[in-house]
Amino acid sequence: MKRLVLLAILFGAFSCTRPDLPKLLQTATWIDLTHDFDSTTVYWPTDVNFRHDTVFYGITEKGYFYSSFKYAAEEHGGTHFDAPVHFHQGGNSIEKVPLAQLHGPAVLIDVSKECSQNRDYLVTANDITNWESRHGRIPEGAIILLYTGYEKYWNDHLRYTGTLKKGAEGVADLHFPGLSPEASTWITANRKVNAIGLDTPSIDFGQSKDFQTHRILTAAGLTMYENLCNLDQLPSAGAYIVALPMKIKGGSGSPLRIVAILPPK
Amino acid sequence: MKRLVLLAILFGAFSCTRPDLPKLLQTATWIDLTHDFDSTTVYWPTDVNFRHDTVFYGITEKGYFYSSFKYAAEEHGGTHFDAPVHFHQGGNSIEKVPLAQLHGPAVLIDVSKECSQNRDYLVTANDITNWESRHGRIPEGAIILLYTGYEKYWNDHLRYTGTLKKGAEGVADLHFPGLSPEASTWITANRKVNAIGLDTPSIDFGQSKDFQTHRILTAAGLTMYENLCNLDQLPSAGAYIVALPMKIKGGSGSPLRIVAILPPK
Repeated sequence: MKRLVLLAILFGAFSCTRPDLPKLLQTATWIDLTHDFDSTTVYWPTDVNFRHDTVFYGITEKGYFYSSFKYAAEEHGGTHFDAPVHFHQGGNSIEKVPLAQLHGPAVLIDVSKECSQNRDYLVTANDITNWESRHGRIPEGAIILLYTGYEKYWNDHLRYTGTLKKGAEGVADLHFPGLSPEASTWITANRKVNAIGLDTPSIDFGQSKDFQTHRILTAAGLTMYENLCNLDQLPSAGAYIVALPMKIKGGSGSPLRIVAILPPK
Repeated sequence: MKRLVLLAILFGAFSCTRPDLPKLLQTATWIDLTHDFDSTTVYWPTDVNFRHDTVFYGITEKGYFYSSFKYAAEEHGGTHFDAPVHFHQGGNSIEKVPLAQLHGPAVLIDVSKECSQNRDYLVTANDITNWESRHGRIPEGAIILLYTGYEKYWNDHLRYTGTLKKGAEGVADLHFPGLSPEASTWITANRKVNAIGLDTPSIDFGQSKDFQTHRILTAAGLTMYENLCNLDQLPSAGAYIVALPMKIKGGSGSPLRIVAILPPK
């Protein structure tokens, strides 16, 4: 019997106390939350579209195939990252955001029902605390993701943004859901999170005239992710987010490649 | 005594069989292997420099701070990712590279001594098998990182690339280490890896005239990372790499944000 105890303890010690992180990550399920960048990618109505031009494509004079391109864009289009300096003077630019702020446990808040009934829906503090009543307190370093359901309209710009107009006229006609200033204030005052992301073009709703939510969040040092996708594939809790923006020195924002990791079953 | 066995088993079952992946990732050490993008970033001698232009910076007419920029660059400069289509017709472009190929256990091969004595050093199959003789067979899905030590010359373009000349003249004068075609053939024939990266401007050494290493690796579906940094902070084995390139549709390459995760002690 003593041997059994010893065996059980040894089993615990050897098989468990050092979980194999590389193995866990290799066998986890990875989900891409990123849209492609191309000429149809959604940008703000005042922005120009994403450019991708051929430098060379074909067989070189030495006889082998070669292809290379160049790209150009505004920082704040497509699936992208907002650094605190976007709306807060003296806030971190992209390269200064600590690596520890670029990953964290996902808190998935599903507001797709509300948003399907109201293009101008503003996510409330109550939507956040409702999540907590089901899944527990938002953990420190969390990444809050708001699933509005608008990701499915990505290829239909009219439904996705509310307008096909460009310039100031287009800006006036933007209609899509966002996070309310009230919820932003509640989050920054009461929880310690790394970032907030969603599947619309902006964390402020389309009809915002003063970008209060951006201002509240960036003043508190938070970062934001906009134009995400595949949020419908995430559980309410349990996923882990790795969000790596292009490291532009002095950048107020940049293209973001963002993935969710679901622990192996 | 029976109770002790039960307790020990329960201890094992509850504390161990489901390792907490989010907790592990939050308490791991994360290392950024990415250089900043700015006007001094290293590009090929035939390329133009990285551009980052101000769209707006200051106080808006509504009284709040706002900053926004735009960027433009060639795909293959700075810390970047090479997709198979860069040198292999029909190979995957960036957005088609499976997510499973964008992460894996790191295999760190230190050739800094050889490269400090020879700017034109070509990493050999023997350098790879020497690593295996000390650390075991390269695991499936691994990411091989070649530490040449040239990362420390990043801010000194002459020492980093071998030349300050531009255009074809500059290309002729490039001198920096790379991976030999012989080692590339050995790796693709004998091991199943996701990617190979290094801390120089190209996986082919500076004096390459026909980019054989690129051609061998891309033909086998491998991806490449160039201009990495902080490889001196990695252990020979045990780190896990997450390498997320900007998702440019049809891209032959793109800016890469790459991190290493070291399991908690």
